[in-house]
Amino acid sequence: MTNPTAAMIVIGDEILSGRTRDSNMHHLAGQLTEAGIDLKEVRVVGDERGTIIAAVQALATVYDYVFTSGGIGPTHDDITADCIAAAFDVGIDVRADAKAVLAEHYAKSATDLNDARLRMARIPDGATLIDNPVSAAPGFLLRNVHVMAGVPAVFEAMVASVLPTLTGGAPLISKTMRIERGEGDIAGPLGVLAKEYPLLSMGSYPFQKDGKYGAHIVIRGNDADEIDAALGKLAVAFP
Amino acid sequence: MTNPTAAMIVIGDEILSGRTRDSNMHHLAGQLTEAGIDLKEVRVVGDERGTIIAAVQALATVYDYVFTSGGIGPTHDDITADCIAAAFDVGIDVRADAKAVLAEHYAKSATDLNDARLRMARIPDGATLIDNPVSAAPGFLLRNVHVMAGVPAVFEAMVASVLPTLTGGAPLISKTMRIERGEGDIAGPLGVLAKEYPLLSMGSYPFQKDGKYGAHIVIRGNDADEIDAALGKLAVAFP
Repeated sequence: MTNPTAAMIVIGDEILSGRTRDSNMHHLAGQLTEAGIDLKEVRVVGDERGTIIAAVQALATVYDYVFTSGGIGPTHDDITADCIAAAFDVGIDVRADAKAVLAEHYAKSATDLNDARLRMARIPDGATLIDNPVSAAPGFLLRNVHVMAGVPAVFEAMVASVLPTLTGGAPLISKTMRIERGEGDIAGPLGVLAKEYPLLSMGSYPFQKDGKYGAHIVIRGNDADEIDAALGKLAVAFP
Repeated sequence: MTNPTAAMIVIGDEILSGRTRDSNMHHLAGQLTEAGIDLKEVRVVGDERGTIIAAVQALATVYDYVFTSGGIGPTHDDITADCIAAAFDVGIDVRADAKAVLAEHYAKSATDLNDARLRMARIPDGATLIDNPVSAAPGFLLRNVHVMAGVPAVFEAMVASVLPTLTGGAPLISKTMRIERGEGDIAGPLGVLAKEYPLLSMGSYPFQKDGKYGAHIVIRGNDADEIDAALGKLAVAFP
C-alpha cells in the first residue's frame, strides 16, 4: 500500500522578493512525514490571480491533498479565497458562520468588524471552515484543498487542527549514518546498496565542518528492519 | 520596460521530507531582486526524473531565466544533469573540460578520480560550465537554465559567478512603514492607495510582538519618488 500524496502552494510576493524567508514549507513537510503522507511538490507563487488558479488546478488533480499558505487576510492583496473559488468554479461570499466567528472575536476587543475584516469571512460555496485558535479568521477546506494563513503561528495552529482529519499512511522511518569519507568514495558502494534495496530511498548529504568532511547518509522507508539491514551493510563497507 | 523574469527549481527529497530546511530559495530571491530580475515562481520537487523534466520544460518556456539547485553530486540520487539533457533532448557524457577541472582539484589532495566522482563531469551537449570555487565540480548553463549545487555554500558561490552574466532590469526599490494598528483598520485606506498607484505593489505583513500589534506595510516599485509620495499619504492616514 502506498502512502497518500500531497502538494503545497506557498502564496506571497514577499517570499519571492526575498523580504520574508518562508518557514511554513519546512513545518508542513515535517508534520506530513510524521503522519505518513508524502509531500511530493511545493510551488511558491506571487499574489497573482492567474498563477494561483493554475497552480491549484494543476496540483489538486494530481495529489491526494493540497495545502496553501498565505493570502487570506483583510488587505487588497489577499486574493487566495477568491482564486480557490475560481479554480473550482464555485461562488464565494461572506458566510454567516465565518462572520459569526469574526464578530465574536472582535467584540471582545471592541474592534469594528469593518468591510476589510469582513473580507476574511468570504468563503467559497461548499467549503468547510478550518479553526484558527490564534486570531479567529478561519481557513477552509474545499474539495481536497486546505487553505491556511501565511503567518507562521497561525499556519502551524491550522495544520494542527487539520492533521487529525487526514488519512495518513505508514510514517516514513528515517535513519542517518555519518561517514567521514569523501562523498565520491561513498557513492559507489551506496549506489550498489540502493539497487539491492529498491523499496528504500537513500540520500547522501555532504558536510564540511571544523576541518572534517564527509556525508550524512540518510536511508528512508516504511520497514525499520530493512533499513537496519541496509545500514548494517553500509557500516561494514565503511568501518 | 518590464524586468526580466525568473523561476527556480529546488531539487531534493530531503527538502520535501522536512529533513533539511532549504535556504537557497531565500538567497536567490534576494540576489535577483537586487539585480532587477523578478522571481515569479519556485518549484520544489523530489529526486524523480519525470517530475524534474516536467518542471524544467514548463518553466524554461515561460520565464527568461531558470535556476536549479541540487542533485549534481556524485551519488546515485544525483540525476539533475541527466534530467536537464533529457528535458532539452540533447546528449550527455563526461566532458573533457569538466573532467580536467575535477582532475586538477582531486590531484591536490591525492584523491582518486573514481567513476562516482567522474559522474560530476557529465555535462549536457552545448552547455557552458559554471565555476565552482568551493569544491570544483562545476554547474552548467544550458539554454536559459542555470544548473547549480544544493549545498548552500556552493550554491551561493555559483550564484555569484552567474549574476554578472545576466541582463538585469531596474532594481526593485522597497520601503517599509510600521503601523501599530490592526491590519483590518489599515486595509481600507491601503486598498484605496493601491488603486491610486497601480505601478507600485503594496503588501501588508502583520506582526504581534511584546504586547504590541500592527502591520509592516511594504511598498515596492522602480520609482523612488512615487514610493515616497505613496508613503507620505499613508503617513497622513495613519499619523
